[in-house]
Amino acid sequence: MEKIAPNVTAPKGFLAAGVKAGIKKSGKEDVAIIYSEVPAAAAGVFTTNTMAAAPVVISRKVAAGGVARAVAVNAGCANACTGEQGAKDAQQMAEAAAQALSVPTEQVFVASTGIIGQTLPMDKLTAGIKDAVGKLSKEGGNDACLAILTTDTTEKKTAYTFTLGGQTVTIAGMAKGSGMIHPNMATMLAFVTTDAAIDSALLQKALKDAVEVSFNMVSVDGDTSTNDSLFALANGMAGNAVITDAESEDYAVFAEALKTVCTDLAKKVAKDGEGATKFLEVTVEGAADFAAAKQVAMAIAKSPLVKTAFFGEDPNWGRIICAIGYSGVGVQPADTNIWIGDVQVVAGGMGADFKEAELKRTMAKDDVVITAKIGEGTGKATVWTCDFSYEYVKINGEYHT
Amino acid sequence: MEKIAPNVTAPKGFLAAGVKAGIKKSGKEDVAIIYSEVPAAAAGVFTTNTMAAAPVVISRKVAAGGVARAVAVNAGCANACTGEQGAKDAQQMAEAAAQALSVPTEQVFVASTGIIGQTLPMDKLTAGIKDAVGKLSKEGGNDACLAILTTDTTEKKTAYTFTLGGQTVTIAGMAKGSGMIHPNMATMLAFVTTDAAIDSALLQKALKDAVEVSFNMVSVDGDTSTNDSLFALANGMAGNAVITDAESEDYAVFAEALKTVCTDLAKKVAKDGEGATKFLEVTVEGAADFAAAKQVAMAIAKSPLVKTAFFGEDPNWGRIICAIGYSGVGVQPADTNIWIGDVQVVAGGMGADFKEAELKRTMAKDDVVITAKIGEGTGKATVWTCDFSYEYVKINGEYHT
Repeated sequence: MEKIAPNVTAPKGFLAAGVKAGIKKSGKEDVAIIYSEVPAAAAGVFTTNTMAAAPVVISRKVAAGGVARAVAVNAGCANACTGEQGAKDAQQMAEAAAQALSVPTEQVFVASTGIIGQTLPMDKLTAGIKDAVGKLSKEGGNDACLAILTTDTTEKKTAYTFTLGGQTVTIAGMAKGSGMIHPNMATMLAFVTTDAAIDSALLQKALKDAVEVSFNMVSVDGDTSTNDSLFALANGMAGNAVITDAESEDYAVFAEALKTVCTDLAKKVAKDGEGATKFLEVTVEGAADFAAAKQVAMAIAKSPLVKTAFFGEDPNWGRIICAIGYSGVGVQPADTNIWIGDVQVVAGGMGADFKEAELKRTMAKDDVVITAKIGEGTGKATVWTCDFSYEYVKINGEYHT
Repeated sequence: MEKIAPNVTAPKGFLAAGVKAGIKKSGKEDVAIIYSEVPAAAAGVFTTNTMAAAPVVISRKVAAGGVARAVAVNAGCANACTGEQGAKDAQQMAEAAAQALSVPTEQVFVASTGIIGQTLPMDKLTAGIKDAVGKLSKEGGNDACLAILTTDTTEKKTAYTFTLGGQTVTIAGMAKGSGMIHPNMATMLAFVTTDAAIDSALLQKALKDAVEVSFNMVSVDGDTSTNDSLFALANGMAGNAVITDAESEDYAVFAEALKTVCTDLAKKVAKDGEGATKFLEVTVEGAADFAAAKQVAMAIAKSPLVKTAFFGEDPNWGRIICAIGYSGVGVQPADTNIWIGDVQVVAGGMGADFKEAELKRTMAKDDVVITAKIGEGTGKATVWTCDFSYEYVKINGEYHT
């Protein structure tokens, strides 16, 4: 796999645009369209929140249909907890995009992100969709990436080329965070485009598998949003033989590429968690299985006490072992070893003999790796999170007003 | 029940002291002794954290024995994750208190709170215990309450009198918070004294029941500490007929009094959560049962997004309904109604028609009540928490150093 300039329009046959429709208070780009020139195999993974927003309900049906031509997205209003009106608005959003693009409505994914409980300003939105469709281009992927952001401070995109049956295939993705980030689903909004040819059922399977080890391994604050959605469109324009066998070498290659794209995006989301000053990678090994390893890693990654300690660059390893202890996995002190970077801070459940200055240097870095070995099992998991800062409190105390 | 001046020495036959032993960096009171002039029925509820601290291991045995004469406590060092040395130190702590008080070692509860991973300064501690024993008095309860605090900003104590079989009985308690506060157990350190006469097995039962609706309904930050312990000593000096029947009226009266004391202390702990500027009471009703109601209430109370919104007095009710949606209980939008104070903000899963100014006034108060009705069931639960402020981040980013 080769990394290329990141843009959702990098795969053949995809165009995009992002425009300013006046939905965000800031006046920035807030409506995006991603469009495939030919029908694409479609897949999606959506929030497990029972208060799923209206666009999620519609996009689930599109994913079930297995074919998509486009995605219409807005930021600034989540169209969640909006009842009947919200359902109508989401449907109208899909129709507006379908009409402007001359494609079937049931082949248009929709997604919204922003404040919960407000209805969409439909006049602005439909005008924005029309505007965006008129501006679709290869370069438009950059504006599209801007249009999906809310409190994000950075754009999150990635792209690769790789070879499938002698053909060069391109796969790309973009995502937005950055509050309400927590697993149990395709966290936040993310969009993957590829010109690979693959059966839609297999695309769905590969996407679900990729989510498990990427987006579902991210926690910013433990909140699973009402709007979380991950979309994948594969339009086949690379010309590879269509992947139809989950046991084939081609499927394995494609699935690996999809995992890489999803992991890239997931890490970017964690890194740009609201108010984050540090990126934390937590690896737990020696567990009975993956699930147990993940449970312990998540207990560490979700602990506000751990997260504030890293913000303060405070070598308070007691909070890490405390989180391991209440994780529910039943880890025993004597089996517990912890490293921060290369510095072992806990050996057999007790403080290890380390140089505090060395640990301080490690904790002062922007990216910090925490590793815990909790036994002799083969279960291993890595999760990504960020520290908890004053800014997190500020952003979330003032978001609405 | 009548509220009286709060002091753990209020019940007959209890003395206490708190002294400065030099364990806290601040130089404040850090060693406390509570002493009963006669053997008391003893009970305890302890942390479920598998990294349970050394004093917890010892105190569990005392509770199992059913008789206690005293409690020895220190703050400033948790004696957790300290291995063999920690176990020896905790044992020596109990022995030092037993010797100074001339009581059996196996009748001395011990408790420690403070930084994890450091061993106790035994010279200072044993000198402090001796000093405290020399200063035991009725007035000493006040100093004892100071000596158990860490980042707490207020003392937490309560006391009542009530009548059992014609005799006036007194029950009192004190507690410390205020970080690492989360259920799954007697959260933090708490001590209940009473002159009621009750069988130790029934005392244990009443204590466990009281914890379920008091301390286990508090969440400050979701972290269950290595040292959480709740102790109860009942010395019988009130002269009531010993309670030996869990079905008796006397047991019911006593159990209710114990619940009241534990609930008072639990609410004080939530109110003084690290960095708290607001006390939040979250009640969920209409659930299938208590467990479901508690699960939803805890999802709301633990959400950093909800907690920061209340800190910012931001009427962002979407975060409350979002938390209900990911709680795992399967609440449907149409069944969901939410009030902040008296103001209904969500009706049938959608924003209700309320006056924003009225809601702002409600959210500006120091104590805010959130009520969610999620169906027609009879399950109801109330949990207590606090908001999430800049101070929380500051306190926990700098605690260790």
